[in-house]
Amino acid sequence: MKKNIVDLQGKLNALLHSYRDSFVEGAVADYIPALASVEPDFAGIAVATIDGKTVGAGDYQHAFSIQSISKIFGLVMAMNRLGDSLWQRVRMEPSGQPFNSIIQLEWEKGIPRNPVINAGALLVADVLTSHYSASKLAFLGFVRKLANNEDIRVDLDVYQSEFTHGNRNAALAYLMKSFGNIEAEIPDVLSHYFTQCSIAMSCEQLAQSLLFLANKGIDPLTKQVICSPKDAHRVNAILSTSGMYDQSGEFAFSVGLPAKSGVGGGLIAIVPNYGVICTWSPPLNSFGNSVVGMKLVEGIAEELGLSIYH
Amino acid sequence: MKKNIVDLQGKLNALLHSYRDSFVEGAVADYIPALASVEPDFAGIAVATIDGKTVGAGDYQHAFSIQSISKIFGLVMAMNRLGDSLWQRVRMEPSGQPFNSIIQLEWEKGIPRNPVINAGALLVADVLTSHYSASKLAFLGFVRKLANNEDIRVDLDVYQSEFTHGNRNAALAYLMKSFGNIEAEIPDVLSHYFTQCSIAMSCEQLAQSLLFLANKGIDPLTKQVICSPKDAHRVNAILSTSGMYDQSGEFAFSVGLPAKSGVGGGLIAIVPNYGVICTWSPPLNSFGNSVVGMKLVEGIAEELGLSIYH
Amino acid sequence: MKKNIVDLQGKLNALLHSYRDSFVEGAVADYIPALASVEPDFAGIAVATIDGKTVGAGDYQHAFSIQSISKIFGLVMAMNRLGDSLWQRVRMEPSGQPFNSIIQLEWEKGIPRNPVINAGALLVADVLTSHYSASKLAFLGFVRKLANNEDIRVDLDVYQSEFTHGNRNAALAYLMKSFGNIEAEIPDVLSHYFTQCSIAMSCEQLAQSLLFLANKGIDPLTKQVICSPKDAHRVNAILSTSGMYDQSGEFAFSVGLPAKSGVGGGLIAIVPNYGVICTWSPPLNSFGNSVVGMKLVEGIAEELGLSIYH
Amino acid sequence: MKKNIVDLQGKLNALLHSYRDSFVEGAVADYIPALASVEPDFAGIAVATIDGKTVGAGDYQHAFSIQSISKIFGLVMAMNRLGDSLWQRVRMEPSGQPFNSIIQLEWEKGIPRNPVINAGALLVADVLTSHYSASKLAFLGFVRKLANNEDIRVDLDVYQSEFTHGNRNAALAYLMKSFGNIEAEIPDVLSHYFTQCSIAMSCEQLAQSLLFLANKGIDPLTKQVICSPKDAHRVNAILSTSGMYDQSGEFAFSVGLPAKSGVGGGLIAIVPNYGVICTWSPPLNSFGNSVVGMKLVEGIAEELGLSIYH
Repeated sequence: MKKNIVDLQGKLNALLHSYRDSFVEGAVADYIPALASVEPDFAGIAVATIDGKTVGAGDYQHAFSIQSISKIFGLVMAMNRLGDSLWQRVRMEPSGQPFNSIIQLEWEKGIPRNPVINAGALLVADVLTSHYSASKLAFLGFVRKLANNEDIRVDLDVYQSEFTHGNRNAALAYLMKSFGNIEAEIPDVLSHYFTQCSIAMSCEQLAQSLLFLANKGIDPLTKQVICSPKDAHRVNAILSTSGMYDQSGEFAFSVGLPAKSGVGGGLIAIVPNYGVICTWSPPLNSFGNSVVGMKLVEGIAEELGLSIYH
Repeated sequence: MKKNIVDLQGKLNALLHSYRDSFVEGAVADYIPALASVEPDFAGIAVATIDGKTVGAGDYQHAFSIQSISKIFGLVMAMNRLGDSLWQRVRMEPSGQPFNSIIQLEWEKGIPRNPVINAGALLVADVLTSHYSASKLAFLGFVRKLANNEDIRVDLDVYQSEFTHGNRNAALAYLMKSFGNIEAEIPDVLSHYFTQCSIAMSCEQLAQSLLFLANKGIDPLTKQVICSPKDAHRVNAILSTSGMYDQSGEFAFSVGLPAKSGVGGGLIAIVPNYGVICTWSPPLNSFGNSVVGMKLVEGIAEELGLSIYH
Repeated sequence: MKKNIVDLQGKLNALLHSYRDSFVEGAVADYIPALASVEPDFAGIAVATIDGKTVGAGDYQHAFSIQSISKIFGLVMAMNRLGDSLWQRVRMEPSGQPFNSIIQLEWEKGIPRNPVINAGALLVADVLTSHYSASKLAFLGFVRKLANNEDIRVDLDVYQSEFTHGNRNAALAYLMKSFGNIEAEIPDVLSHYFTQCSIAMSCEQLAQSLLFLANKGIDPLTKQVICSPKDAHRVNAILSTSGMYDQSGEFAFSVGLPAKSGVGGGLIAIVPNYGVICTWSPPLNSFGNSVVGMKLVEGIAEELGLSIYH
Repeated sequence: MKKNIVDLQGKLNALLHSYRDSFVEGAVADYIPALASVEPDFAGIAVATIDGKTVGAGDYQHAFSIQSISKIFGLVMAMNRLGDSLWQRVRMEPSGQPFNSIIQLEWEKGIPRNPVINAGALLVADVLTSHYSASKLAFLGFVRKLANNEDIRVDLDVYQSEFTHGNRNAALAYLMKSFGNIEAEIPDVLSHYFTQCSIAMSCEQLAQSLLFLANKGIDPLTKQVICSPKDAHRVNAILSTSGMYDQSGEFAFSVGLPAKSGVGGGLIAIVPNYGVICTWSPPLNSFGNSVVGMKLVEGIAEELGLSIYH
């Protein structure tokens, strides 16, 4: 790879200038009121590198609802806690289905296809709820440690909104429970899941907090081991095949980085041995991915030659 | 990446010694008689590198039926011929379904999920049949050029056997035609498809012939441009998310290389900027992938640190 | 039709003697402990006719858990309460799927295929919960009135057992709610549904209570209008195409009567202008229908020439 | 039942007058050119009774393409030829799917749900092709005998058109063959199937030719045994649960007669012990059933109290 970063700041500024207005092609998530009311024209990008630098442009320090990006943190916690037995309860295959499909969950008898579709993330939430005495606090503590920031918090408006509109997630959870694949009580599992989805973070914080995935499991700033090198590899593999919902193949095809998006408009991409890119722009395409975010990540990956498939 | 290749020959020998007997866990493909009669205890591995060397162990010079590995050659030919309009007729998403699923093809109205499941490969066969006056000869010529070997040929027993047992592929093709996504006559498309599946090549020949995918589209030996750097990237992305049938996610998770398997027992893995690994051992697991082949590729990838997700 | 009933009592005795031992081909429902503990060798049959007579054999006066047969009572109550607007929330098509399928509910965007599969019965339970101040009491009152028996009651052991093992029904209900097709709170809907399923009645009571369906909506004993002639017709039509789960077509083919089975081992068949047959034998076949019950109803229908398709 | 037929001719005239203009709500089948060119405002109705009378109104003597109504004739021929072993190759359950669904056929491993969806009718065509030396002639002979009319013929324009646009039927047939459930060569099976679909008959001819189904298998005019009473029952049962495509439940609910429609705009309904109704009006609703035909049959069934569910 040839990450010739002469003027990263200049490139980020230029990319943001080129693409920030394409947000009009998408639509802000409207399944919960708390997200529907976000201004559509926010746009930010941050790049954190494993040598300890972070560069950003636009609204890269403005906190937003991380939503499904939280699935990465939960997955790492569950891998650390359960070890390989986790993979008896959730697979690691792309789904070929929308993120919240209940059909596939029925076919596969309550075993979610992977931990970054909703069913899989609910399974992970069950693991955390069952194995921590206070899983929400533990989750928030883990994120704060990774971001090295004690001010990160849960947006309670979003949390309430999620709960009020969480019937499909409840259906997924009860279906898994009917197959014996959920241990805790469903309301507790949902409460944990909606809590982690409702955490608010900025591009800068997200990029920094995920650097361990670009660095074989070690936080490059604190040198702490966050997970094993093998598990960092596994998370990157899962994000590469499944992180962008039913557009994961297209993202691999056109960009070529492990990535995860959230319906709050956030998008993170891991660049092994280099760093993490995080973008934020609320309007989403029909797959649930940020329109501007995808263009920004594609642009920076192409300019810097970051793809893992070259 | 740290491909410290002090003694590649020694490593290949050791790996083959360790794993060649695990073939008893699998079963030779029996859907056509010509494949069912292959001896199960063949085993070979070859590694070709972009600096022009090839190392092999076991039966690495013995020709076998390449089957679905041929989908790579067809895809590159069709990309070269059609350009980006190809992607209006086939997608690039993992399927989340068995390789020969007709259900998904119906849901998605005759547009295959990707070019390396059967439906997608039949679509590619239609492109070649429609755009070449003699598509089978053109295909064989392309493979011979890549392998730099004029002796590569079609196994006519396998071809006949495929045709006799090709009813499911016929069903897939007619269903696509009913949606208007096949141009040529179905018997011609099937004849082309079964021809390319019936080509016989050795591990050594396959590894060498695919080096351009590890080298941004350029054949490192002849310096010929086989495809654009972008298309080499795209093929590698598709192989990463979809190349190992419905075990693609697990292969990414445990190995981490773009790869393609065939029911003849072959398996190729692309290592960008390094080379190509090819293995052969006929017995398959329930997903249709070679049992021994997967262990060999995992072993060599781990020893040499080849994964793209680190 | 030629219902030549010279000696109905003799026929019932003979049929019961012929078939009661074939219960060993089936298996008692085991999805809830309270049903799994029922003795498998109970067997009874009752025939109530619109001229006011009831004849029975075997354990025809022994109460059992009516389970899905309760869906008929609920459907009639909801039709009476909502009128034709009910059919905007549930269809009347056979499902072609197991009784508790969640896949079809997803495809059809939360609109159940018919009111006698679980999803449809939960929809009906929602209607009753939302439109009655005390829906469980109203339901029990309706059944007691039809059976002319104030002693009919809910089996609380079965009710508790249903609730503990009701995760799949909860999943169906939450999925419908996510599509906006459930008005009440899910726990209330489930509580109503499990209550009606847990009612205990005998063959004699069930046969008598459903006579209005054989008599154009009028209870032949009390002359009360239970529903309109059109709605009696509609219920019989739904039971004919969908009442025997995914064996409804076979039941029409071999017997030819509107019918409904329950996993408690009960089975009722409506004979228009004649009466109602009710059988009970707990062991079920793989479709969830009573093995002995189907043989008994087929036998009596054939002997008396009761089929509606002749 | 109270088939008080004082003035059947008057009723038919009145119904036709009331409903014939509602054809504008539908659309003439356009999947093949030969059907798409039919004038939409044809409308006819005929009622043939087992006492030997036939009454008609409108275009009831004008021949049209019988299409799927031919499935009844084929089914009876196959039942007569194979006996009960037919039911090991095709089931008798409603499908819960569109008439040409390939998804269900895949799920159920090549066993069609019933003989009146396309897959099932192709299976029946295979039986006839395999068991008659000249199945097309035998079929035409059978229909001519039933209609007592040697002039009935195949519309060759329609036949050619079917073949040119028969790719989905070919897909269904090849899929069944891949499961080993088709014996003959697919082109022969398709040729038989398209031949029988392309027969042209009038309402009057169709109504008279199917009287045996209303008369326990015996042609009331010639007293010939066409099929056993049991098989007449079975055909009526299948038509009741599955004859009107994915609107069969609604037709039972609102009309209540065994029936079969064809995309040529024909519709027949069997009234056990009474006779046969046949209507023709080309424009179809979204389920593929004639808009005017359904209204006419509903009207006559209601006026004469013909439903089997009362």
